[in-house]
Amino acid sequence: MFQLLRTDPATQARLGRLETAHGVVDTPVFMPVGTQASVKALDPRELDEIGTQIILGNTYHLHIRPGLDILTKAGGLHRFMNWPKPILTDSGGFQVFSLSKIRKIKAHGVEFRSHLDGSLLFLGPKEAMAIQRLLGSDIAMTFDDCPPHTAGPREVRAAVERTIRWAGECREQSRAEGQKVFGIVQGGADSALRQECAKAITALQFDGYAIGGVSVGEPEPEMFKAIEATVPHLPAGQPRYAMGLGTPAQLVELVARGIDMFDCVIPTRVARNGSAFTRQGMISLKAGWAKEDFGPIEQGCECFACRRFTRAYLRHLLNVNEILGLRMLSVHNSHMFLKLMADVRAHIAAGTFAGFHREFIATYRPSRKVLAARKNAKPTDEDSR
Amino acid sequence: MFQLLRTDPATQARLGRLETAHGVVDTPVFMPVGTQASVKALDPRELDEIGTQIILGNTYHLHIRPGLDILTKAGGLHRFMNWPKPILTDSGGFQVFSLSKIRKIKAHGVEFRSHLDGSLLFLGPKEAMAIQRLLGSDIAMTFDDCPPHTAGPREVRAAVERTIRWAGECREQSRAEGQKVFGIVQGGADSALRQECAKAITALQFDGYAIGGVSVGEPEPEMFKAIEATVPHLPAGQPRYAMGLGTPAQLVELVARGIDMFDCVIPTRVARNGSAFTRQGMISLKAGWAKEDFGPIEQGCECFACRRFTRAYLRHLLNVNEILGLRMLSVHNSHMFLKLMADVRAHIAAGTFAGFHREFIATYRPSRKVLAARKNAKPTDEDSR
Repeated sequence: MFQLLRTDPATQARLGRLETAHGVVDTPVFMPVGTQASVKALDPRELDEIGTQIILGNTYHLHIRPGLDILTKAGGLHRFMNWPKPILTDSGGFQVFSLSKIRKIKAHGVEFRSHLDGSLLFLGPKEAMAIQRLLGSDIAMTFDDCPPHTAGPREVRAAVERTIRWAGECREQSRAEGQKVFGIVQGGADSALRQECAKAITALQFDGYAIGGVSVGEPEPEMFKAIEATVPHLPAGQPRYAMGLGTPAQLVELVARGIDMFDCVIPTRVARNGSAFTRQGMISLKAGWAKEDFGPIEQGCECFACRRFTRAYLRHLLNVNEILGLRMLSVHNSHMFLKLMADVRAHIAAGTFAGFHREFIATYRPSRKVLAARKNAKPTDEDSR
Repeated sequence: MFQLLRTDPATQARLGRLETAHGVVDTPVFMPVGTQASVKALDPRELDEIGTQIILGNTYHLHIRPGLDILTKAGGLHRFMNWPKPILTDSGGFQVFSLSKIRKIKAHGVEFRSHLDGSLLFLGPKEAMAIQRLLGSDIAMTFDDCPPHTAGPREVRAAVERTIRWAGECREQSRAEGQKVFGIVQGGADSALRQECAKAITALQFDGYAIGGVSVGEPEPEMFKAIEATVPHLPAGQPRYAMGLGTPAQLVELVARGIDMFDCVIPTRVARNGSAFTRQGMISLKAGWAKEDFGPIEQGCECFACRRFTRAYLRHLLNVNEILGLRMLSVHNSHMFLKLMADVRAHIAAGTFAGFHREFIATYRPSRKVLAARKNAKPTDEDSR
């Protein structure tokens, strides 16, 4: 189900091919995030045109709205949103721990108040897998305990133990036809705990492995440390997924560290704030300098927005709150991430990834937020999923 | 420049062909409104796909943002927004009188405060025509005095006199290459004033004539009365445009009264409020009944939204504030108006319009707002442009 086609001789970058019930996914891959059964501001045709192979959905959000009753009657998530390609669903673990302020951790899951209306809900391994079975996602994630970046050693250890136990319970649940299940490794910034967790989770023999507990507000070096502490303990023959990451530069750095799959809200979120990603870094199109700039967002970019519109026009649209402005930035930014991954795959295939990696990092100017996050724990653009 | 191809034998409906610098427009036509250089929530490809022939832009709004400097440097409005088809620009008269609360009417125009930042601006016949010349619209409108529905007889008479004098001044201004200019008839609900104004405006020999001072909050019967009092005094050989109208039923009724052109924000505004137009009337997709309705917005509709998505899915998107929801309703509603006009044209061509008219009105259930506006002056959905 996962073919490792090539490993880069100079880095740990891997070229792969992941087969799912709704089609093949070429890795390394970036997965646009459709939390509530829609990738924000984009339609499925636009997703197709920018080369989307697989998108994300979210158990926690979809469970609350529209609810399982409607999703079941619709015939699952693919049919509900009319997206025929692969879908990966997050288990809700991250959201239970980050979105709901009132929660009680129990042996077999978490009792929590809905962030929407305060109603009492319960999610655990059994429930999360049952929901994902009904959603019919191609890849389901195990239900984990994802502590915040600020958690102390005792809390992180408890989370790891719970994550391992719950992963075992997830493993026993039945699945939708053809559904893969990925295990999640926790352990915070503690390398020994990461190793311990990875060993226990991989022993359960999932179809792929995710690194969780990253992109939770930690400084960038700590994120890389957590990834580097985990990757060596994951089997080479299965896909590796870094959850909730990252910026373009982080994606390239993580590919070089052996990661195959990524998801992040950053391209569409940044778009709604009026900024665009380019190979040189992020630029704000709301700024005055764009006023009379009649070039495209990014020279040479082939996305719909760059083929049709100028920076001056898009700046005007953002300035007067016309929806077309944030729509076109969402198209451009998502395309930028997917095209970057396509280039990464081509370079791994050609054996030229090391040079591409070096050059990309030298050219790409990180935002001030990211630079700050390299030193301390200030939240970064991509700090929530 | 305007060919009257056929007049319906049983009604006053007309089939026409309007040649402009950016292409031919088949009439009767509905013109989607792109006040700020964008038809709200839609992109030019979607506009093309739903059969848009011509769109509206607005002198007042574009003058304020992005401003003439940028529009001139961009090479005009078509190039700024990358819309290669015809554009009609409103003169700003309506907005000066409806949007800016502080204004001083002078001999050659209106001094007013920008609704945005309160800066002092001046618009009159000379300025409005100069701006429209720079915008390079295919059809420019004269600068008129559009009094509110509540204006007294003296105020309406003064507005008519001013509108006639300013029309004369507009007539003398130079135009962009190939640009047509339409005169506007005012006169409120006073049939004699409407006739007087129509005679004076048509004597100035414009390329087409608009009926203004309708869709300003008046009861529906008063609107029809104003139209009926004006149409007989407009030359048969030129296009007639009812400004700011209307609902689907009003469009069909006005075609039967000899109107050729329409514009209204209602399809996209109603979409952003979560409602859809169908041939049976307006429906709210946010309502609970749509929850488990897995049919399209409208059975048999061929728009992108109806071919792709169910009511249940769109209801969910609206419910959780996903932009795709209002986008898809904007596509559907705009398509509904344009397809209605295409059917109207086909029926006039086939000599079957009278039957179509009768059947459409019998089937179409007006909204409660419209029913209320048939009796009194409560504002209707389409009360502002």
